Formats: sequence, structure tokens, C-alpha cells
Amino acid sequence: MSNKYAVVLAAGQGTRMKSKLYKVLHPVMKRPMVQHVINQLEVLQLGKIITVVGFGAEKVKDQVGNQSIFVTQEEQLGTGHAVKQAESLLQDAEGDTLVICGDTPLLTKETLQALFDHHKQTKAKATVLTTTIQDPSGYGRVIRDLNDDVAKIVEHKDASPEQLAVNEINTGTYCFDNQTLFQALKQVSNDNAQGEYYLPDVMEIIKQSGEKIAAYQTEDADETIGVNDRIALAKAEKLMKKRINTAHMKNGVSIIDPDQTYIGPDVAIESDVVIEPGCILMGETTIGSDSIIGPYTEINNCQIGKNTIIKQSVAKDSQIGSSVQIGPFAHIRPEALIEDEVKIGNFVEIKKTKIQQASKVSHLSYIGDADIGKNVNVGCGTITVNYDGKNKYLTKIEDEAFIGCNANLIAPVTIGKGALVAAGSTINKDVPAEALSIARTKQENKSGYAKKIKK
Amino acid sequence: MSNKYAVVLAAGQGTRMKSKLYKVLHPVMKRPMVQHVINQLEVLQLGKIITVVGFGAEKVKDQVGNQSIFVTQEEQLGTGHAVKQAESLLQDAEGDTLVICGDTPLLTKETLQALFDHHKQTKAKATVLTTTIQDPSGYGRVIRDLNDDVAKIVEHKDASPEQLAVNEINTGTYCFDNQTLFQALKQVSNDNAQGEYYLPDVMEIIKQSGEKIAAYQTEDADETIGVNDRIALAKAEKLMKKRINTAHMKNGVSIIDPDQTYIGPDVAIESDVVIEPGCILMGETTIGSDSIIGPYTEINNCQIGKNTIIKQSVAKDSQIGSSVQIGPFAHIRPEALIEDEVKIGNFVEIKKTKIQQASKVSHLSYIGDADIGKNVNVGCGTITVNYDGKNKYLTKIEDEAFIGCNANLIAPVTIGKGALVAAGSTINKDVPAEALSIARTKQENKSGYAKKIKK
Amino acid sequence: MSNKYAVVLAAGQGTRMKSKLYKVLHPVMKRPMVQHVINQLEVLQLGKIITVVGFGAEKVKDQVGNQSIFVTQEEQLGTGHAVKQAESLLQDAEGDTLVICGDTPLLTKETLQALFDHHKQTKAKATVLTTTIQDPSGYGRVIRDLNDDVAKIVEHKDASPEQLAVNEINTGTYCFDNQTLFQALKQVSNDNAQGEYYLPDVMEIIKQSGEKIAAYQTEDADETIGVNDRIALAKAEKLMKKRINTAHMKNGVSIIDPDQTYIGPDVAIESDVVIEPGCILMGETTIGSDSIIGPYTEINNCQIGKNTIIKQSVAKDSQIGSSVQIGPFAHIRPEALIEDEVKIGNFVEIKKTKIQQASKVSHLSYIGDADIGKNVNVGCGTITVNYDGKNKYLTKIEDEAFIGCNANLIAPVTIGKGALVAAGSTINKDVPAEALSIARTKQENKSGYAKKIKK
Repeated sequence: MSNKYAVVLAAGQGTRMKSKLYKVLHPVMKRPMVQHVINQLEVLQLGKIITVVGFGAEKVKDQVGNQSIFVTQEEQLGTGHAVKQAESLLQDAEGDTLVICGDTPLLTKETLQALFDHHKQTKAKATVLTTTIQDPSGYGRVIRDLNDDVAKIVEHKDASPEQLAVNEINTGTYCFDNQTLFQALKQVSNDNAQGEYYLPDVMEIIKQSGEKIAAYQTEDADETIGVNDRIALAKAEKLMKKRINTAHMKNGVSIIDPDQTYIGPDVAIESDVVIEPGCILMGETTIGSDSIIGPYTEINNCQIGKNTIIKQSVAKDSQIGSSVQIGPFAHIRPEALIEDEVKIGNFVEIKKTKIQQASKVSHLSYIGDADIGKNVNVGCGTITVNYDGKNKYLTKIEDEAFIGCNANLIAPVTIGKGALVAAGSTINKDVPAEALSIARTKQENKSGYAKKIKK
Repeated sequence: MSNKYAVVLAAGQGTRMKSKLYKVLHPVMKRPMVQHVINQLEVLQLGKIITVVGFGAEKVKDQVGNQSIFVTQEEQLGTGHAVKQAESLLQDAEGDTLVICGDTPLLTKETLQALFDHHKQTKAKATVLTTTIQDPSGYGRVIRDLNDDVAKIVEHKDASPEQLAVNEINTGTYCFDNQTLFQALKQVSNDNAQGEYYLPDVMEIIKQSGEKIAAYQTEDADETIGVNDRIALAKAEKLMKKRINTAHMKNGVSIIDPDQTYIGPDVAIESDVVIEPGCILMGETTIGSDSIIGPYTEINNCQIGKNTIIKQSVAKDSQIGSSVQIGPFAHIRPEALIEDEVKIGNFVEIKKTKIQQASKVSHLSYIGDADIGKNVNVGCGTITVNYDGKNKYLTKIEDEAFIGCNANLIAPVTIGKGALVAAGSTINKDVPAEALSIARTKQENKSGYAKKIKK
Repeated sequence: MSNKYAVVLAAGQGTRMKSKLYKVLHPVMKRPMVQHVINQLEVLQLGKIITVVGFGAEKVKDQVGNQSIFVTQEEQLGTGHAVKQAESLLQDAEGDTLVICGDTPLLTKETLQALFDHHKQTKAKATVLTTTIQDPSGYGRVIRDLNDDVAKIVEHKDASPEQLAVNEINTGTYCFDNQTLFQALKQVSNDNAQGEYYLPDVMEIIKQSGEKIAAYQTEDADETIGVNDRIALAKAEKLMKKRINTAHMKNGVSIIDPDQTYIGPDVAIESDVVIEPGCILMGETTIGSDSIIGPYTEINNCQIGKNTIIKQSVAKDSQIGSSVQIGPFAHIRPEALIEDEVKIGNFVEIKKTKIQQASKVSHLSYIGDADIGKNVNVGCGTITVNYDGKNKYLTKIEDEAFIGCNANLIAPVTIGKGALVAAGSTINKDVPAEALSIARTKQENKSGYAKKIKK
């Protein structure tokens, strides 16, 4: 078992979010911030991941589940006090402990691993993750000594003019020798204006005990941002968007406008896919090569084949084959299974329906709870009448059937292979294969009546 | 009555806009620029707001209405000449006069108030609003003297190399001792290349009379931009967008992508609302807490309750309750009154219709001029036939009624409480409560006919 | 005939694009990169434009067609080798030859002409197009001599610290005295790590022969970017978007958000048009003055009149008149001819149909293969049943006709002038002028049945 550990600080309320939702649960790319942190940690295969919860404890536990163990900080007495809650779980462990905030959704496993590695390599008892930024106002400055070790971390308000000129900052992420950390925590006092126990105070304590403190500086300052309000939340969203889109572009995906393309972290896209502007692709979506998605298409949890085109549409929890055409203005609702070469046209809604190869639903239709064969032509305005106010029933349309326009198919009903339903018919009985089914009244032309009515 | 006044310069043509529309009427966030200026001034409760109109005078007056009084500049003889048109209304007044351009839509009441305050405090006879910018090319430079007062304002073309190096610029907004202003204006000459009377010349005149000229510097250079062409107009739009969105985020609204979210200045949004990308929210729209709007939703003048979800839709001049679901691809036209828990699904148009609690119009319907009770289910494809080519009539559907798919309800018509309209029926007579109404022909299956027809 | 020539390097594979599509064929604003280059060159009226093709040669030839002549580089032995392929076509020509890469889609004819002019004026034998950038890492530095001529071009890896500090870079575009170029190419060796013949080596060769090398520096570094991967491709797209949008704004078009407005290079827009956010306007689209397009509207190859409004819609290959209203959520498919004052409302699809003045198709309709007269009212849910599974037929609706809701018009069929089709009718025979046509069953109300059914 690994002798590396992590303590995730996720107990704060996040007052500046002005939210009923607990801070670390606010999502970035639809994933709660603390979940981003936990997912990165999980890859590092640590001995223990301990999440310190407080405000909204139950909801955080529900979110993170068994990816972490939890300790509760009953009172909010500062970050030092928060870490101390993990003492019973960690105090005897030999090894290194990462302390990370639950509101830093952009930190990557690579940077965290590098922090562990640097800590080990320098044989420091504590290593702080730093970065340099143009305007370090408000941040704690990391003052290096002649050996490039950390001499001191000074808060902005306590810094001398020379220290203020330093733009290497403390990101609030640390790696500690585990036992040194908990020893030092015992000595942290709350003798300050807020009456809180501050984690950074352990640095001074460790230093004064004669031990070495190192700093690992990451080049990408954006990675280290902490989210305390919705402005920072939007910034994190933007940075994550950019990171994900850049990775897809490197992989051979054409993203016409990466600034307004929103792709979730679990989406997989093959090369030579083109993403037009304004798309939102989320969940466990996959897209096969040479497909064209968008513009302005929202897809959630869909598996999409190759050479498929989806324009100005919404699709969720469905499977869509290859060489399929969808949209503009189509709505694919959950449990659709759309096979290769199918065409779904404008103003069409598909729900819980299988549509086999090369069938077409080209215009203004609602197809729900249906099973449609191959080479079926569903005419414009066709409606599967699947609901009687209580239950939903199945409509079955067999291969090569042709459904005339504005037909109502009152389920449960089966339209046989090659059958033909006349336009404007309401069908409530099965139609045998190759039969013509019709349910409509003869047309009557009343001469001159239009003139009369208008008067 | 306040002894503070404002003169708004709104007489120029704006040639570089290349527009039939008069410059100060070009909108930013759907509001004409001069209206932004007037609205900010109005809050300051001035003694008089005088707008100098010229080109397009009538349209500017129509826009601003009784928020201002107007004087007309018949000939365009320069900014000094423009201000002079207000002489008859202001010359005897004691107090201070703000001179502001009608094409500076981003200046805030806070900055204007601070300019008045600084003017008063410094006891200057004139105070110029300044700001500093990286690249001051083309702008008049504000040269300070040793007391930090204004020694001189020099135009870019007249500036010495040292003066060119100054990046504090004249924003074109001023506060004057009112009587000093009009005295000085009498001395301004048009002895220059354009033959115009320039307002900035009064500064030199006041200075030479031995009076003090102060400068109030605002930190936010963006606030001071003047709009002379459509490129600057788009920039102003972007800055206003950012300002408004930032304020909402501070208030606890999650805006997923503030760069592409367009919220008008009169929209009110409660905390924990989520705005997905691409939304355009305008007019007197209000949105209750925990609602989710978007993506790609345009809402104008709607009052929306709590916990409501509106996706990929358009809504205007309507009231929408709490826990309502709308979209994707729905169109709510004016005078809809949609109560709590209603569902409006895809490809549904609602116009001038009341829909009571928990009713559903889930798919492909047009409901216009209707009054729908509670717990009504309007089936897919239902159409209220509200128009006979001359007049529009009311459709009334009472509580718990169930309208079958593809039904036509020919108004005026009432569907009684709990009544059931069979799918595919065209209804032109009232349906009593609890009755089943049907208007369709029996289905006939013609065996083998489909095969024949295909041949 | 002009004694200026161009050699376009378009033979590379573009491995970093990770694409089956040959690099220079990747589109920027829907136009392949090499086509952008060729189009700019074409305006310069050169004696010859020679495109060097290699990978994907046939597809590049198909794209560029007779705008260029082609030579093939069979093996990819470097840029010098590529240019050499043009030797047989150019070696005897007197004059100047531009060498340009097919992956520089942003270079303008103005810059290329200025490069030719500078070359001529300086009497250099070779002139390199340079620009200055903030961070020149990785680029070849242009080292000037005391006469401002080029002393040397050094690759980043070979540069001294002083040379690294130079931020004037070689853009990879050159103008040569034609015969000097091909003479020098003979001396270029492939004695380097890659074993390739590098074009920049000719500079040193020309220099050492005692000839002068000039540099023409363009201010707009963005113009010179070469596209080697999809990240650069997206950047080129963004820059081209900005360039085009800026030009339209200067011309008097209001673009509410130029960052998310996508206008192709061949679109023409008159003044006082407003483009709302999210529009994609491509192909040979023209838009008349005072029209409002968008938000979120995609238009391809449409000619649109004045005062027309198109919202949240998709239109392609169609003609749309003046004072037309379309949308939201309409789909205009190819070969629609929509005359003045027509209204196309929500969830309406129009295909290959002529609609004459002031007719309305306001809601939820499919009109395909139709010819509609003036002042026709097509009711909600109307469908032209144009397809019998094999062929498509014409629906003709004459002036002033009124089509009731949810009508099916089974083509071929003619609805006469002023005729009236009753709501819910399926029409399969012609309707005479002024006649009322009806095809529906009488409504029957079954008292209390709804209650029974619910049980």
C-alpha cells in the first residue's frame, strides 16, 4: 500500500458564492469542484484520501462516495484545525501527506505527482506548491533562501516592500512529511484576530525546528486558482474548457470556435470530427470520426458513430449510428437507438425508440415508445399516440412500411412489413403486411361557399 | 431644488456610424446610448437635465421624453456652440453644470457623482474627468501642475514629446461652475481650420482668468469610452455585458460563460439561478431562485418563478410560474400566463393563453387564445384553430381534460372538465364534462393494396 | 503578361493536423487554406501561379482548379526541393517570384503586393517578409545590417544570445529575382540531419554571391501565421472572423457580438443591418439594409432583401424578399423563393417552394414542392403531401386561399383562388376557386364515456 496520503479541505461554507449549495459542490463543466480534485487524486493511487467535511457534509459525502474517507470538522476553526481532524486516521502513518483545497478544480494529477516527487527528492519535511503571477496582490509570498529552499511564507499584509515585490505565491497546496505535519499542528495557536488555527503556521513551526521547507513551482498559474465566488467559478469553467478543447484539437478534432465550445471531461472524440460553434457535449458522450456536430447542438451521454451529422439539435442518453443525419431542430430523448443511415429531420422528437437502418422521420413528428424497422418512411406530422393518460404503449412499424402524413398511430399497434398508411388516417388496429390502411372521409367541394363564409 | 445641472451633447450626426439612425440612438444592450446617459443622470436628482439635440432631434426627444428638457443646435458649429444652446436655460443659475456626451453609454452615476464631489471639494471653476490609458495616441493629454491641478489640456497634434508621454487623457466629460462656463463660452472663437467653437477652449479661458481647473481621474478607463463607429459600439456592448454579468455573479447567479451571456440592464435574477451559455435576457425580465435558463434561450420581458427550467426556447411578454419546464425549442409568445408545474415541451407555441397548474402541452402544438385549466393533458399535435381569416376566438379547456393527439379545436369551443377528445378529431362543438368526443372515420385495411400501389 | 510569378507550397502532409484531410485543404471560414492563398494571389494578376502539390495532389488540384498550374513533388525532400519542382516552368522567365506557403490563409493581397513593390524598389535579389512578435521563440530571426538589409537569417537553435533577443522573424514568405532563385537552388545541399533541401539556405547562397537581400516588415503579425495543427487552425479562424467582422462594422453593419458572429468572406451586407449574437452567415449570401438577422441563425447562400427579420432559423440556397419575417425555429431549405412581406413562423419547413407576396405560413407546417400565391393563409399544421414513396409532386395554392389547420394537401393538387379548406381535411382532389372543401367526420359526444374509459 502506498505511503502517500491526501487530505482534501472541503468543510468551508463559501459565503461569497451566495448560495444554498455548499461551495465545493459548485460544478465546473457540470462536475462538482471537489469531485475534480478527488478524481485527480484517485489516479495517484494514494494510501488514503481523507476529505474533511463540515458545511453540507452529507451532500459532499454523497457526491464523493467511496472514492474517499471522511472526517468531520464540526466547528470552522481554520484550515489548521481542519487538517487536524484527520489526525486519528493518519498520525501513525509513515509517509507523505498532500493537503489540497476542495475548491481548486484545475489542479492536475501531473502537478500533484510532481509535488510529491519534488518533496521526496529534496528531502524536505514540507513542500509548498507555488506559482508566479503578474499581480500577486493579496497572496502570500514565498521567500526563498540562498539554497532555493523556503525561508518564509509571508502574508500580503505582513510583507515588507521587498517581499511585496516577489511574485512567487503560495497556492495553498502542500506536501508534508506526515508525522511532522501532525506534530507541528499541535503547536499551532489561534492567537489571532479571527481566533482561527491557520495551516500555513505549521511552516514556520517546522522551519524553526530546523527542518527544511521546499517549494515546487508550477508554470501554469491557472491550474492553481481557488474558487471563492461565482466570478472565479466562471473563470475556472473557462480555463477547464480551454484545456479540454486544446487536448481534442491536438488529437485531430477541428473545433471551429474553441471559445464557445463546451466539452465535458469524459467526452471522447475521434479524429477528423468537426465541432461547429456553440456545441455543448457532456457526460459519457463518444463521437466517431468524420462526424460533424453543430452548430448549437447539445449532446449528453450519447454514443455517436462515424460520418454522422447533427445540427441545431438536442440529444440525450441515446445511441446514434454512423452516417446518420439529425436536425436541424430535432430532439432525441433518452433511450433512442438510432441505427446507421437513419435520417431524423426538423421538428422531430424521438423518445425510447429503436429506428433501424436507413429509415426516415423527416419532419414534424413525435415518435415515442416505438420499434421501427428498416427502410421505413415515416411521413411528416406522424404521431405515435403512446399515452392514454395512464400508461404508455408500443408502436411497431415493420420494414419498408410507409406512413402517410399527419397519421396517428394509436398504440399498441403494429404496422406490417411494406404496409401503407394513408395520409391523415388515425390507425387504432394493426395493419397487415403489404396492406393499405385508410381512415378518412371523402372530400366534398362546396361551390362558392368560401365566398359566402367570408361575408 | 438641486443646484446641479447637466448638459448632454446629443446633436452630432455620427457619420462614421454609416447609418440612417442618429448616433446617440444606437443601442447598447438594446437601450439607446443617450438613454443610458440620461438614466445615470436622473439618479443624481439634478436641477435640470438639458439635452442639446440637432440631427434627428425629434427622434431623440421621443426617446428621452420628459426625463430631459431640450434645446436645439440648428447648425453643427462645434461642442462649444452646442453647450451655448443651453445658455438661456442656465445662464442665471448658481451651481455646477456637468457637460457630458450622449455617446458615452458606460459612464456610471457613481463616477459622475464623484466628479461633482471632487469639483466641489477642490473649489475649482472647472473639473475635467480624466483617466489613464496604455496607448493615449489621439487623445488630448491632461498636463498637471505642481498642485495636481490642471495646467493645460493639449490636443495630441499640438503636444510636445514630453506631453505625448503623458497617458492621462481628457475623457470629454466636465464639471463647471455654471456661470463661469457661460461667461467663458462667450470668449470662445471659431478661428480654426474647421471654423468650429470648441468646448475645451473654455478651459484655457478659465485658466487665464486666474481660476483653478481640477481633474478627477477615474480608474476604470473603460467607463469613459465614446462611441463613434460600430467597432466602438460593439466594444461598448461587450463592456456593458461584462459589467452587468459581473454584478449578477456577485449576487449569487451562476453564469456558465459570461462572455456569451447577454443580460439587459433591467433584468433581475435571484441567487442560485444558473444561466447556461448563449442566453439573451432582456427587458423587465425577472427570474426566481434555482431556475435554470438556457442554453440558447431568448427571453424578453418575462416574469419567471423559482425552480423553473427553460431550454433552447424563446419567450416574450409572458408570466411563467415556478417549477415549470419549457423546451427545448418552445416559443412562448406575448400574454401567456403559465402557472406552476406546467410543462411546455418541444415544438410548442403558446400565445395569449392561460395554462393552469400542472397541465402539459408536451409536443408539437399550437395553443393560442386559450384558457386551459389544471391537470389538463394536451396531446401531441393539438391545434387551437383560433382564426377564421378575420377574427380570433377563444378555446376553453377545463380541468383534467385530455386532448388526444393531432386534435383540432375549432374556436370558440369549450372542452368540459374531465372530458376526453379522441386522437385525430376535429372538434367544432362544445364537449360536456366527462364526455368522450370523437370525430373520425373507421379504419379500413385493404389487403395487398400497398403492393399494388407501389407498382 | 506580368513578369511576376508565384510558387505556392502545398505538398506537405501536415502530420500534426492528425487528419485524413491533406493539410492545405483544411478550411478556414469554410474555405480551404490553399484557396485563400490562391484567391489573394489571383487578384495580383501574376504571370503564373504554380502550386507545388504532393500529398493529396489530386484533391488540391480539384480544389484550386484552373486558378493555378501544378507541379508535383513526388518525394518530400524539403521546401527548397519543393520550389525546384517549378524550375521547368519558370527558369527562363525574367521577373520576380513570390514563394508562399499554402498554409498561410491570412496573408492579404495588399501585403503580398507590398512585398513585390518593396523587392522592386530596393533592387534586392531576394526579399523576405518579416514581422515582429513579442515572443519569437522557435522562429528564425532576421538580422539586419547597417543598411537595414538582411545580414543573415538564423534559426532559433543556431542563434546567439544577441540574435535571440531580436524579435523580427522570418515569416516563410519570400520574393526572389526569379533566375537568381533557381540558380541558387542548384547549390542548396541536403547535408543536414533531416537530409532535406531547405529553401532558406538560398538566402545565404545569394548573400555570399554578393547580392543584396532585403526585408519587408509587415505590422500585422497575425497575417503571417502558418497553420500546422488544429490549434493554429482555430486561431486562424478567429483572426479571419475578426477581420471580416471589422470590415462589416466599418461599413455600417451593427454586429452585437463580433466574437461570436461567423461571416464568410463572400457575404455582402448593406448598412444598418443588425446581426444578433451567434449567427453563421456563409456562401454567397447577401443581406439588404435594415434587416435583422439572429440570434442563432445559420444562413448559407441566400439573397435576402431589406427590412427582413430572421430569428433562430436555418436557411440555405434560397431567395428571401424584403419585409419578410422568419422564425424563430424555421427551416428554409434549398430553392425556396419567398417574396416580400411573407411571414414564416415557428416550426415551419419550406422546401423548393415559391411563396408570393404577403402570404403566411405561421406555425408547424411543412411546405415542399409548392407554388403559393399572394395573401394566402396556410393554417397551422398544414402539410403538403408531396411524396408517395417514389416521386414528388406539386401543390398549387392560388391567391387569397385559406388553408385550415392540420390539413393534408395530397399533391398533385390545386387549391383555387380564394378557396377555403376546412381544418382537419385531407384533400386529394382539386378545389375550385371560391369553393369550400371539407373532408371530415361529424363530431360525436359520448356522454360520460370519459369517466368510464378512465376506469
